[in-house]
Amino acid sequence: GYGRFGLEYVEDRGVGLEDTQIASRLRLNIDATTETDVGVTFGARLRFQNSDSAGETTGNQARFSVGYEGLNVQVGNVDTPWDSVGLTYDSEMGFQDSSFGDAQAPFFAYNSTGDAALDGYTGIAATYSISGVNLYFAYVDPDQTIDNPLGFEEEISIAADWTNGQISVAAAILKDGAGIADNDQFFLGGAYSFGDAKVGLNYYDYDLADSNQVTLYGNYAFGATTLRAYVSEMDIPGVDTDTAYGIGADYSLGEGARLSGSIQSGFAGENVADVGVRFDF
Amino acid sequence: GYGRFGLEYVEDRGVGLEDTQIASRLRLNIDATTETDVGVTFGARLRFQNSDSAGETTGNQARFSVGYEGLNVQVGNVDTPWDSVGLTYDSEMGFQDSSFGDAQAPFFAYNSTGDAALDGYTGIAATYSISGVNLYFAYVDPDQTIDNPLGFEEEISIAADWTNGQISVAAAILKDGAGIADNDQFFLGGAYSFGDAKVGLNYYDYDLADSNQVTLYGNYAFGATTLRAYVSEMDIPGVDTDTAYGIGADYSLGEGARLSGSIQSGFAGENVADVGVRFDF
Amino acid sequence: GYGRFGLEYVEDRGVGLEDTQIASRLRLNIDATTETDVGVTFGARLRFQNSDSAGETTGNQARFSVGYEGLNVQVGNVDTPWDSVGLTYDSEMGFQDSSFGDAQAPFFAYNSTGDAALDGYTGIAATYSISGVNLYFAYVDPDQTIDNPLGFEEEISIAADWTNGQISVAAAILKDGAGIADNDQFFLGGAYSFGDAKVGLNYYDYDLADSNQVTLYGNYAFGATTLRAYVSEMDIPGVDTDTAYGIGADYSLGEGARLSGSIQSGFAGENVADVGVRFDF
Repeated sequence: GYGRFGLEYVEDRGVGLEDTQIASRLRLNIDATTETDVGVTFGARLRFQNSDSAGETTGNQARFSVGYEGLNVQVGNVDTPWDSVGLTYDSEMGFQDSSFGDAQAPFFAYNSTGDAALDGYTGIAATYSISGVNLYFAYVDPDQTIDNPLGFEEEISIAADWTNGQISVAAAILKDGAGIADNDQFFLGGAYSFGDAKVGLNYYDYDLADSNQVTLYGNYAFGATTLRAYVSEMDIPGVDTDTAYGIGADYSLGEGARLSGSIQSGFAGENVADVGVRFDF
Repeated sequence: GYGRFGLEYVEDRGVGLEDTQIASRLRLNIDATTETDVGVTFGARLRFQNSDSAGETTGNQARFSVGYEGLNVQVGNVDTPWDSVGLTYDSEMGFQDSSFGDAQAPFFAYNSTGDAALDGYTGIAATYSISGVNLYFAYVDPDQTIDNPLGFEEEISIAADWTNGQISVAAAILKDGAGIADNDQFFLGGAYSFGDAKVGLNYYDYDLADSNQVTLYGNYAFGATTLRAYVSEMDIPGVDTDTAYGIGADYSLGEGARLSGSIQSGFAGENVADVGVRFDF
Repeated sequence: GYGRFGLEYVEDRGVGLEDTQIASRLRLNIDATTETDVGVTFGARLRFQNSDSAGETTGNQARFSVGYEGLNVQVGNVDTPWDSVGLTYDSEMGFQDSSFGDAQAPFFAYNSTGDAALDGYTGIAATYSISGVNLYFAYVDPDQTIDNPLGFEEEISIAADWTNGQISVAAAILKDGAGIADNDQFFLGGAYSFGDAKVGLNYYDYDLADSNQVTLYGNYAFGATTLRAYVSEMDIPGVDTDTAYGIGADYSLGEGARLSGSIQSGFAGENVADVGVRFDF
């Protein structure tokens, strides 16, 4: 898991709310595995996560997995292709790893915190890795226990990513994202590394609003420091949006710890900033 | 602890409910112990259990223990004799270890999941093991904090089991089971092993409804496969019940993992089936 | 963490309540740390605590820390000076480590149990240790997320303690304790050890009621046994209070386990007693 804490500024956060707060997260993964005689690995994960001065911590829904060579099948609180595919989060920055350049339409992902409202949520997912290519598939039922879960649909998604030396590409298709009918989405991303620098472009197509999003990002490392920047354009018919952008920097403290900060601006021109530390354990 | 997941079919599960669901369980035991200079062992257990796509996981009530040689005393969320005695669960099958041949009247047992409704539940239990004989005792107060817990009684139970080569016998007496006045029960079980096969007979007497239950079971192992079967008869005065039965099979995957399935039918003729995996860690 | 359980008697505990109950506590600390290349240690703690037959266990709010040589800075669910300073709890006795001689006015401390009512609670604390001296500082905001947390104030406290051979002294100042305006407090303590015995005096000044408290305590160890005693006087203008006192004994079982008991009487003359075991792990 990891820990992170620092200052987070959100312009006009809300009526009566402090714009500047201490943001924090402690994420503890409990992984239990056993490997059978023929090399099949069974595993289960439970996560305890406490964020932003929440007063209590409950465990989430369990995820079960079976792995054999490059194939991994998950059941329960599964990782989804839209959330797992390469490149999609590569414009993130700051100690909270956030970006307006991330996909902006709803989708299902591994649920990190316990929530009784998720009772019945059940996914089946598979990943297959071979020769630098990763393939992802998932089927998620918002509530497997009942015939007609309140008009919600099952979400289906597939994805693939590939890295070969300096070039990385990734693509994903999402059908009925977050169980919302016709919330179909498409993602295509590419990145190129040269020396200490990397640039990438992510494209998202959202069927529901007939909109799309393009995020261009880059980073440059020198010594322990990494500079990061991105711009993201959202094109929604009949809606006027600002260009979102962000600049940030990481300073590596070694052993998986880093000091990170960012200044970002969203599609409505809202400004946010953060500075803090993150450490893995 | 262990993990298990697979498909569970329950005929006519309920209005609006899917008959076939993915059933799963992740059980994590956290055991903390310390041994004093004179050989007394103090211990405490906390369990986190997530079952059947529940959206969150909370810890249960703690169990404390003191052990010295063959004697073990527990306080709090204790193991009870009726739930711990040998043979009583030996007709179980499938990846969920279920059987209609299990005792069918209510009783207190170690509570695996957190539940605020259990506040005040407190037991004192003791087990003593010597020369292949195990003796069990428990006293459970449904709510130790108040004088008169809503008409509930304290449950008292004792049990003993003995194994000697091919023969095993077990017996238990339960008074005011689950705190219900006059819910007295009696259990007697015997089993015989020969070669790769085992047969057993469990008898339960339930005072409250003047009823009794007889379960005959057997299993046969060849190679990695174990076949299982049972029939159970319930005799309730004035009530017509079907003969419950089940057939199942396990296929060992090694290192405590197995693939298991079963088809079972209950006392009202209801049909259930399951197939899935279980692995210990 | 630790486990403890035993009998607790509270005279006239309440209408309908049992005066004698089994008291227990299981405390599990989960500490995750990482040390960077230059010797800075980042850490995070989550605690699971189950007490007195509570039916469920949830994790508390996370505490984050950064340490470098003698300096330790905490963020989130922090340890507070008033709760951490030396000597202040030294009159405690019994397997539950309780004393009427402890400070009797409210203050913030590390929250051991999860409670959604604590959402937003956020502290910043620092300790510095050098040459036998410990310095403590903390600032606690009852709810960092909102501008005006329901008339509550931020609590500020500083403390210092020092031990040199036989002599220990400690002092603490608390402003707006527990976020209550003008709940200012002052603590001064001293203790002297000679051979197997120790005596100490703790003085508390409470501004809000213009009151003060003096606790005199001592203990004497011979072999595995430690005898303990205290008296505490509360001086509140216009209020008649009894002298609180307690006598207790510990019997060490080795490896951090002990059998402890006490008989105590409070400022209203109420009698309590406990006997049980405590073990660390």
